[in-house]
Amino acid sequence: MNNLLPLVPRKPMLSLDDAVTQLLVDVTPLATSECIRTFDADGRVLAQDVVSALQVPPHDNSAMDGYAVRCADLTAGVQLPVTQRIAAGSVGAALAPMSTARIFTGAAIPLGADAVVMQEDCMLQEDGSVRFVRSVALGSNIRRAGEDVARGAVVLRRGERLTPASLGLAASLGLGELAVARPPRVALFSTGNELVMPGEVAPEHLPPGAIYNSNRFFLRAMLLRLGCEVTDLGNVPDQLDATVAALREAAQAHDVILTSGGVSVGEEDHLKPAVQALGHLDLWQIAIKPGKPFAHGRIGQGGAHVFGLPGNPVASFVTFVLLVRPMLLRLQGVQDVTTTSIAAKADFTWARADKRREFLRARRNARGDLVLFPNQGSGVLTSLVWGDGLVDVPPGDTIAPGDVVRFIPFAEVLA
Amino acid sequence: MNNLLPLVPRKPMLSLDDAVTQLLVDVTPLATSECIRTFDADGRVLAQDVVSALQVPPHDNSAMDGYAVRCADLTAGVQLPVTQRIAAGSVGAALAPMSTARIFTGAAIPLGADAVVMQEDCMLQEDGSVRFVRSVALGSNIRRAGEDVARGAVVLRRGERLTPASLGLAASLGLGELAVARPPRVALFSTGNELVMPGEVAPEHLPPGAIYNSNRFFLRAMLLRLGCEVTDLGNVPDQLDATVAALREAAQAHDVILTSGGVSVGEEDHLKPAVQALGHLDLWQIAIKPGKPFAHGRIGQGGAHVFGLPGNPVASFVTFVLLVRPMLLRLQGVQDVTTTSIAAKADFTWARADKRREFLRARRNARGDLVLFPNQGSGVLTSLVWGDGLVDVPPGDTIAPGDVVRFIPFAEVLA
Repeated sequence: MNNLLPLVPRKPMLSLDDAVTQLLVDVTPLATSECIRTFDADGRVLAQDVVSALQVPPHDNSAMDGYAVRCADLTAGVQLPVTQRIAAGSVGAALAPMSTARIFTGAAIPLGADAVVMQEDCMLQEDGSVRFVRSVALGSNIRRAGEDVARGAVVLRRGERLTPASLGLAASLGLGELAVARPPRVALFSTGNELVMPGEVAPEHLPPGAIYNSNRFFLRAMLLRLGCEVTDLGNVPDQLDATVAALREAAQAHDVILTSGGVSVGEEDHLKPAVQALGHLDLWQIAIKPGKPFAHGRIGQGGAHVFGLPGNPVASFVTFVLLVRPMLLRLQGVQDVTTTSIAAKADFTWARADKRREFLRARRNARGDLVLFPNQGSGVLTSLVWGDGLVDVPPGDTIAPGDVVRFIPFAEVLA
Repeated sequence: MNNLLPLVPRKPMLSLDDAVTQLLVDVTPLATSECIRTFDADGRVLAQDVVSALQVPPHDNSAMDGYAVRCADLTAGVQLPVTQRIAAGSVGAALAPMSTARIFTGAAIPLGADAVVMQEDCMLQEDGSVRFVRSVALGSNIRRAGEDVARGAVVLRRGERLTPASLGLAASLGLGELAVARPPRVALFSTGNELVMPGEVAPEHLPPGAIYNSNRFFLRAMLLRLGCEVTDLGNVPDQLDATVAALREAAQAHDVILTSGGVSVGEEDHLKPAVQALGHLDLWQIAIKPGKPFAHGRIGQGGAHVFGLPGNPVASFVTFVLLVRPMLLRLQGVQDVTTTSIAAKADFTWARADKRREFLRARRNARGDLVLFPNQGSGVLTSLVWGDGLVDVPPGDTIAPGDVVRFIPFAEVLA
């Protein structure tokens, strides 16, 4: 040991985009799908196209409570007998000329009728007939059959992530079940002898040098939001054999193994040699801040993906959002896994240009402009709680108030 | 029945803001809280402040793998003996002048040391000592004790909705459990004889006039995302006695009853008289589009809230987002329940000014500007699947390309 070169040769810094591309090239979407109740499919990813077997709405129907008429009959002040009453779910007879049908929202338009007059524009007479005050345009207040969905149309595509609205759409087409990708199975552990589990030791008894584990808490919550099944393997001691054993066991029943801590080039970090012992490892230097160090590898017979995230909480959170999340979505078959960012105006100064692309914790002020959390340290978890999202600062850039910047709202990446 | 006045006197149209205010005035946050594992608290609402019993980080610690030094010792080219090795979780001895300590990320800074030099800037010598190339600023690469959280600080407040990051923060302070509001218990049913459950009847056997239920699917998913416990009571027949019975039973064990369909002034709608029979009802005409008709009432001994949402899917979705969601958050104790909207640029023309405030389904194009779904009908569920959110059009307004408008991203209201 006569220098401090890392144990594996250091590669040149990768750009974030190149790192994401490399990661995704290495991902084969899960082959297995499962049929689940449409009721329970929120957040899951479709394993096949949804094709409509019917048209929506199924028939021309009334958009209002009112009276179905033949437009040609509606001279000003005309009075027409009400010959039938059509509620939603029932089917009326053909509408004879010079008559009208009482009709309710959603009810099928009877044959012959070509408009609905809303009831507020009608006057019901003592004898039960209805007087119409003005004429009405052809098709008024009629929702056309198939206007929402044509028969045979692909309404939801394989690889689409389901939302509450898409569950509603699938249901409206008669689908009580949907084929979705099975949930990725993710094993989660942390490494670090300094880590203590909250609840196990009271703050006043925390040994010197010890800190509470926090990364597993937000990583698990984010994994669950992405539809994963999570196995929490706890904290693995900072020893090579323990790390190898934990990885070997986890690789048997999981698609992805996520660890935080232990991927630095420091001597105390055993994740790297453990992954190398069981498969192959890329120790990436990605040109982002926070975000160092980050490792990805494949181990075991099934080629389980191993991610070594930084131990610093903010770096761990940010690398999860920017790198692990797209990978977990692609694993479920999602095509477009781009991290959503929007344009927003800075209400802050950022003078420290960095050679790396930087992600700053910020929130919107009352005007909707972005302000920064004062402490941008990668250990400062409060910045993530205070913030609404991340400002994406290109390498070498400074920012002045009024500049338009890219902003990644947490809501977009946590949904 | 010699006119078509509604059964209850029609009130003047309420503005959305007034409607939300009236609703919230009527909400008493749930009195009961429960202690749950921090691991499981994502999305729940804190029932008490989280006060830190410790400082984070607990001690000055190294932000890097490197060497702890006394700045005063670092003349250019100085060579110092390595007298100790401090890993995260262990505690070193005081650092003697003219010596250095090998130190790893997260490890406590030894007494006497006042900076850390990152290992990349050091040269390890044959004899085990370290040569330093340049001087270093006081405090370099040291994270200060309490820099993230001071002891005694309120870090999360009662009424705050927990996110992955806030679980991490609570954990970092040693909290293995959190007191959160109990989940609101919500009963959900739909009304409408025309409604058929998906899966029960195949599309090719759908009777004329029948349509599949879709509203319960997205309403349930949105309720679950808001941390509610949902009882699905299915579809209640369009009869007064059935509606009364369903409401009476639901009111016994639920805080909120949510129905869709059946709150029009049409003769087929039984929700209104049923609510009136069991408590009191406000049939509101809210000046929004879509969003008609909307009803709110209180029934039963516990004063369960009843919401009658429109039967049209888009109207049902929009009123849930704008009116029911804030109420469900307030019920859990959230103070700021404002619906998040952001400024965005229109890439469309909206020429049809309406006297009501209108919510249009839109998505962002490649430039991040908003484009409209072509069919803005309130029955068109595909618009909600296609869209990223709602454009909030003030009453009487038209919109031209380039105008800055308010936009409610779905991600913000579905999280």
